[in-house]
Amino acid sequence: MIIVMEKDSGDESVENVVGELSRRGFDVHRSTGAERTILGVVGNVETLDPREFELMEGVHEVVRVSEPYKLSGRAFKRENTVVRVRDIEVGGDQVVVMAGPCTIESEEQVARTAEKVSRAGARILRGGAYKPRTSPYSFQGMGVDGLKILRAVADSHGMATVSEVMEIRQIEGMLPYVDILQVGARNMQNFSLLAELGRVDRPVLLKRGMSSTIQEWLLASEYLMSGGNYNVILCERGIRTFETYTRNTLDISAIPVVHKLSHLPIIADPSHATGLRDKVMPLARACVAAGADGLLIEVHHQPENALCDGPQSLYPDQFIKLMDELRIIVPAVGRSI
Amino acid sequence: MIIVMEKDSGDESVENVVGELSRRGFDVHRSTGAERTILGVVGNVETLDPREFELMEGVHEVVRVSEPYKLSGRAFKRENTVVRVRDIEVGGDQVVVMAGPCTIESEEQVARTAEKVSRAGARILRGGAYKPRTSPYSFQGMGVDGLKILRAVADSHGMATVSEVMEIRQIEGMLPYVDILQVGARNMQNFSLLAELGRVDRPVLLKRGMSSTIQEWLLASEYLMSGGNYNVILCERGIRTFETYTRNTLDISAIPVVHKLSHLPIIADPSHATGLRDKVMPLARACVAAGADGLLIEVHHQPENALCDGPQSLYPDQFIKLMDELRIIVPAVGRSI
Amino acid sequence: MIIVMEKDSGDESVENVVGELSRRGFDVHRSTGAERTILGVVGNVETLDPREFELMEGVHEVVRVSEPYKLSGRAFKRENTVVRVRDIEVGGDQVVVMAGPCTIESEEQVARTAEKVSRAGARILRGGAYKPRTSPYSFQGMGVDGLKILRAVADSHGMATVSEVMEIRQIEGMLPYVDILQVGARNMQNFSLLAELGRVDRPVLLKRGMSSTIQEWLLASEYLMSGGNYNVILCERGIRTFETYTRNTLDISAIPVVHKLSHLPIIADPSHATGLRDKVMPLARACVAAGADGLLIEVHHQPENALCDGPQSLYPDQFIKLMDELRIIVPAVGRSI
Amino acid sequence: MIIVMEKDSGDESVENVVGELSRRGFDVHRSTGAERTILGVVGNVETLDPREFELMEGVHEVVRVSEPYKLSGRAFKRENTVVRVRDIEVGGDQVVVMAGPCTIESEEQVARTAEKVSRAGARILRGGAYKPRTSPYSFQGMGVDGLKILRAVADSHGMATVSEVMEIRQIEGMLPYVDILQVGARNMQNFSLLAELGRVDRPVLLKRGMSSTIQEWLLASEYLMSGGNYNVILCERGIRTFETYTRNTLDISAIPVVHKLSHLPIIADPSHATGLRDKVMPLARACVAAGADGLLIEVHHQPENALCDGPQSLYPDQFIKLMDELRIIVPAVGRSI
Repeated sequence: MIIVMEKDSGDESVENVVGELSRRGFDVHRSTGAERTILGVVGNVETLDPREFELMEGVHEVVRVSEPYKLSGRAFKRENTVVRVRDIEVGGDQVVVMAGPCTIESEEQVARTAEKVSRAGARILRGGAYKPRTSPYSFQGMGVDGLKILRAVADSHGMATVSEVMEIRQIEGMLPYVDILQVGARNMQNFSLLAELGRVDRPVLLKRGMSSTIQEWLLASEYLMSGGNYNVILCERGIRTFETYTRNTLDISAIPVVHKLSHLPIIADPSHATGLRDKVMPLARACVAAGADGLLIEVHHQPENALCDGPQSLYPDQFIKLMDELRIIVPAVGRSI
Repeated sequence: MIIVMEKDSGDESVENVVGELSRRGFDVHRSTGAERTILGVVGNVETLDPREFELMEGVHEVVRVSEPYKLSGRAFKRENTVVRVRDIEVGGDQVVVMAGPCTIESEEQVARTAEKVSRAGARILRGGAYKPRTSPYSFQGMGVDGLKILRAVADSHGMATVSEVMEIRQIEGMLPYVDILQVGARNMQNFSLLAELGRVDRPVLLKRGMSSTIQEWLLASEYLMSGGNYNVILCERGIRTFETYTRNTLDISAIPVVHKLSHLPIIADPSHATGLRDKVMPLARACVAAGADGLLIEVHHQPENALCDGPQSLYPDQFIKLMDELRIIVPAVGRSI
Repeated sequence: MIIVMEKDSGDESVENVVGELSRRGFDVHRSTGAERTILGVVGNVETLDPREFELMEGVHEVVRVSEPYKLSGRAFKRENTVVRVRDIEVGGDQVVVMAGPCTIESEEQVARTAEKVSRAGARILRGGAYKPRTSPYSFQGMGVDGLKILRAVADSHGMATVSEVMEIRQIEGMLPYVDILQVGARNMQNFSLLAELGRVDRPVLLKRGMSSTIQEWLLASEYLMSGGNYNVILCERGIRTFETYTRNTLDISAIPVVHKLSHLPIIADPSHATGLRDKVMPLARACVAAGADGLLIEVHHQPENALCDGPQSLYPDQFIKLMDELRIIVPAVGRSI
Repeated sequence: MIIVMEKDSGDESVENVVGELSRRGFDVHRSTGAERTILGVVGNVETLDPREFELMEGVHEVVRVSEPYKLSGRAFKRENTVVRVRDIEVGGDQVVVMAGPCTIESEEQVARTAEKVSRAGARILRGGAYKPRTSPYSFQGMGVDGLKILRAVADSHGMATVSEVMEIRQIEGMLPYVDILQVGARNMQNFSLLAELGRVDRPVLLKRGMSSTIQEWLLASEYLMSGGNYNVILCERGIRTFETYTRNTLDISAIPVVHKLSHLPIIADPSHATGLRDKVMPLARACVAAGADGLLIEVHHQPENALCDGPQSLYPDQFIKLMDELRIIVPAVGRSI
C-alpha cells in the first residue's frame, strides 16, 4: 500500500500516519521529495482498509499495490491452468464448445438436441435442472429427474455435462450426474455457496456478475480456490450498460484481459448476453477470434416450443453452421476445435 | 402487449402473428393505419416472452404494456402502505431513522452507541450479526449471540431492531430478536430467500441491488408480497455507474419515482452508497429533503476501532448534529422526525 | 405513437387526451379493451413530445412507434449501402482496413509506416492533422502541412486517405487532401458540424459517442444524410461502462445490431477502445469475425517515439501478423480482405 | 508518478525503466522492499503517458499521483471561490436561484415568467437563444433578438442573465446581453470553445458532460482558468446510467465531492436531469440540502405551450412553492436564500 501525502502536509501529519501504521505492526518506507512525502507500507496489507488512512489529516491518496487476488493471478502461477473434465481439456489447445437446451424439459428434448450438437462437435452437454426465475409462477425446473436424463443422454454420446447449482443443499444431489457445476451471474458473490463449492472435488464454471468488474470476478474465484478447488473456468456473459438494445453488453475485451491477469481458462456465453438468436452467431465467432477457450451456447431442437429462453436458443441447423464457421476461424488463434 | 408491424409487412405476416396468438388463446385487436398495422393483445400476457414475437417475420417492435409488478403498484393499492414495527410507523408522518453499528462487536459497543443514537432521536437500532464479506478471512459476525445483545440493548431504550438475514436457515433463529429482517443488495434477486421471507410474519427491508433497475426492484418486492408478506420497506443504497469517486452513486431520484409507482415506503442508506463519512451527512439531508420515509445510518461509538466499515460510520456527535439538521428540514416536506 | 391509459382511467381522461390530439391535428384510433383503453396516434408524430401526454391525467405510458431515424433505417433502403472511395468499396465484399499513425508527425514517419501497412494489405491511410487534446500544452497537430504529407504518401502507394475534421472552418482546407472526413466521438452530437458535412460531397466516417446509444448514433447520421450526403460509414469505438480495466468497452454487439437496423456500413476502431496495443489484435479479429465491414487501426513505425497514443499503436510487424490472421478469418463471414 | 514493479521483476527490468526515465530527464526515487521495487518519479510528469511504462517488461502498475487538474484544486487555492455577477455572489452565503424558460420565445413569455420568478426570489434570469436540437427541423432559437428581450426584462426586475453559448462565433454578440455564459453538457469537452471562453472577461457556467467523471469535469474547467478566466461555476445536471426511468441520474454526491476537491462553486440543474416536472421539486430540495451553491430551474408561464421542454418546466405556482420550501431548508446548511 502506498500513502501519498498532501503537498503542504506538515511533519506532524506524516508522523501521525507513520505512528498509526507502526502501532498496527507495519514497516514503513519513507520517500521525501521536493513536492511531497510518499509512504510505502510493507507487510500483510490486505487486512488494512485504505479508507481509514484516506480520512487522516494530510493524506492525499491511498493506493493499493498488491492485487487483492492471489491464487488466480499470473504472479501465483505463470502457466495456463488446464481444467480436465473426463477426457476433455478446457484451457488447452482445443476450443471447447458446451451446448444444449436452457432447461431440461423431457428426455426426448434432450436426446434430440444432444444428437445434433454432438455430431456438430460439441463436447459438453448443458441443461438446467434448477432455474432462477424472475416470476414465482414460471417453470422452476425438473430437479434431479432432469439431471438423470442429462447424464444418460450425455453418456450415450460420450459427452460431459454442465448444469447450474443455485443453493448449497443442491450440491450433494448433483454430483453423481454433473461434471461441471455452473455458478450463475446472480450468484457470483454468493459467498456461502462459493465457499462450499471450494470444498468439492468437481470443476466449477463461474459466470461473471452482470455488474461485476474483472477484479471482483477474480476475487470471487479466489473463494473457490482458497477452499482447495483449483478447477475453475471463468465465463463472460455480458455486463449491464446504458445501451438497452441488447439485453447486456458482451465484454469481449475481458477475454484478453483475463488471459493477461490470470492463468484460469475463460469461455463466453453469447446466448445470455444478447438474448436473441440472430446475435448469437456473430458474437460466438467474435469470442473465439478474441481467444476464448470455449463457448456455452443454448440450442433447442424446437426453440419455438421451449419452456424458457426460446428466442435465444439456436436451431440445430444454425449451430451446425456456426461450428463450420468456427472451424475456419480457430487456426487464426492457433487452436483446433 | 402491443405488436407493431413493419411498414411494409404484408398481410401474410400479420395473419401469421395473429394466428400464433390465437393458437395460444389470446384475443387480438387489430388496428390498420395508413402506415402500418398495430396489434393489441388481450389476456394474461405475462406468460408470453415478447422476444418470440420480435423474431417473427414482419414484426417491428413488441411493447409490454401492463407493468409486470402488480401487488407493489399504485394500481393495486392507491393509498400509501404504512409498515408498523412495534409502536413505530414507517411510511407515516414521521421520518424514521434507523442507526447503529455496521456489525455487532460487543455489548459495550452496542450499548454505548445505542445510548447516543437513541437520545438523538433514532427509533430503530441496526446491527449486523451475519456479514457478507468479500474475503473468507474477515470477521464473519457474532451470530445469535450478537442478536441477543442487540435485542437487550434495544429494549432498554425502547427501540425496535433491524438486522440482515443472508440465508434461509438463519431466519428461524432471528425471529425472537429482530423486528425488521433486512435483505442486502447482493441478495435482492435471491429468489429462494425472498420466497421464504414472503411466508414470515415480520417486516422486511429490501435493499436495491447495485445494478438493478427500479422495475426489477419492485418485481423483487413482489416475491415477498405474493407469499403474503405485505410489510415491505424499500431501501435505496446506490447504484453502480462509471463514476468511481464515490463507491456507488446514490440514486436520489428513485425516491420520488418509487413514491409515484408504488405504495410501499422507501428509505435510504447513505452510508453504504458513499463509503466515507464526510459524504454521509449531506446525502442524508438530501434524501430527507427529497421525501424519503426514513434513513439507515451507520454510527459507531469509536469508528476508528470498528471491525468493519469504520470509515463510513459517523461519530456519535456527527449523528447528533445530523439529527438537528434534519429537524430543520422535515417541515419542508410536511413531516416530523 | 401509442398512448396507454391507466386501468381505472375514466372516460373523461380519455376524452381529454383525444381532444388534445385532435386540437393539434392528429387522427386517433381508439381501442377499448376489458382492462384499459389504448390510443393509436396517426400523423407526423415526430413533432410531439411524448412527455406532454405522459403528464396528462389518466395516462399510463406513452410509446413511440416509428423509429425517429428514417434515412439510415432499413425501412428506407433495404439493400446495403456501399460507400465508394476512389476504387475501394466500404460495405461491399471486401473487409477494408484503414491504418496509419494517430498523428501525422513528419514525412519520414508517414512514409515508413505507409510502406509497411500498404504492403500488408491496408487500403486506406489514416493520420490526424488536427487533434482534440485534453491539455492545452499538448501537440495540436501539423494542420494542412500534415495533410499534404498524408496525400503525397498515400498517392505513392495507391491508397486513399482518412483524417479527422474538428471544426467547420477546417473542412474547406481538407478537401484537396482527404478522401474520408472523420468525425470523432466527442463531436458525434456537434450538430452544426454534422449539418455542414451533410452539404459536402465527400464520404464521412462517423464515430459513435462514448456514451451514445445506437439509436442516437443513427440519429446523428441522419443529420448528414438529410443534408444530402449519403456516403456515411459508422465506426464503433467503445462505450463508457463501470469496467475501468480497459479505457472503454468495445461494444461488438453493435455490429450485428447496426447491420439489422441500418443499411449503412459499420467498421470498428479497436485502438481507441482499448488503449493498449496487446488488446488491439484480439479485438480486431473479433470485430471482423462479428461481421464488421472494416477496421481503423493505429500503426506507427516507432510507437515508443510517437507524439500521441504510442501505447495503443501497433508495431508494423504486429500489423502484418494481424492481417495474416484476418485473412484466415474472413472466409467464415463470406468476405475477402 | 509511481511505478510499481512485478514481484519477480529482475534487476534488468528495473534498470530499463530507470534508464528510460533518466533519458527523459526525470529523477527517480528507488525503494526496494522485500516483495518488490517501487519507483517514485519526480518532475513534470504531466507530459508522460503512464501507459508507456505499463507496457514495459516487469512493470506491474503505474499510478499517477499529482491530480492532473491544478488551478481548480484546493491545493492551488484553499478558500472558496466566490463568483460575482453584478451584485450577486455565487458561492457565498446565499443559495442563488437561476430560473426562467428553456427557450426565449417572445417578450410576453419572458416578461410574464420573469415577473413570477423574480418576485419568488430568483436572482438570475435564464433563457436560451441558441438551441442544440436533435432534429434539424426543430425550432433553433431567436438568437440576438432573443437576448435583447432577456436583457431588457432582466433589467426591469434587477436580475442578472444566463444563456447558453454553442459556438465561438456567438460569443462576441452575446457579451452585451449575457452576464453568465453557459456551456452545455454536450460541449463540456469542446476544447476550442473552452479555450476561447478562457480569454473572455465574463463568468462561465460549465455543465458536467452526461458521461464525464468529476475529474474530467475539473480538467475541463482548467481550460477556462488556464486562459485567465477564474470565474467558473460548475453545474451538475445528471449522468447517464443503466436506469432509464429518469432521463439521467442526478449525481447529488458530486456536490460534496466537488466541494472537497475544488474551490469552485457548484450548482445543480434538476430540470434537465429528470425531464419531468414532478421530479424537479424533490430533487431541487435535495440539492440544496446537500450543500449546492445554487440551482438552475426551468419555469414557463404556460408550460403546455412551450416550444421546447415544456414537460420539465415548472408552473409559476410550483416555483413559488419550491422557493418557500427551500427557505425552510437553507438554515440546515447554514445558508440563506
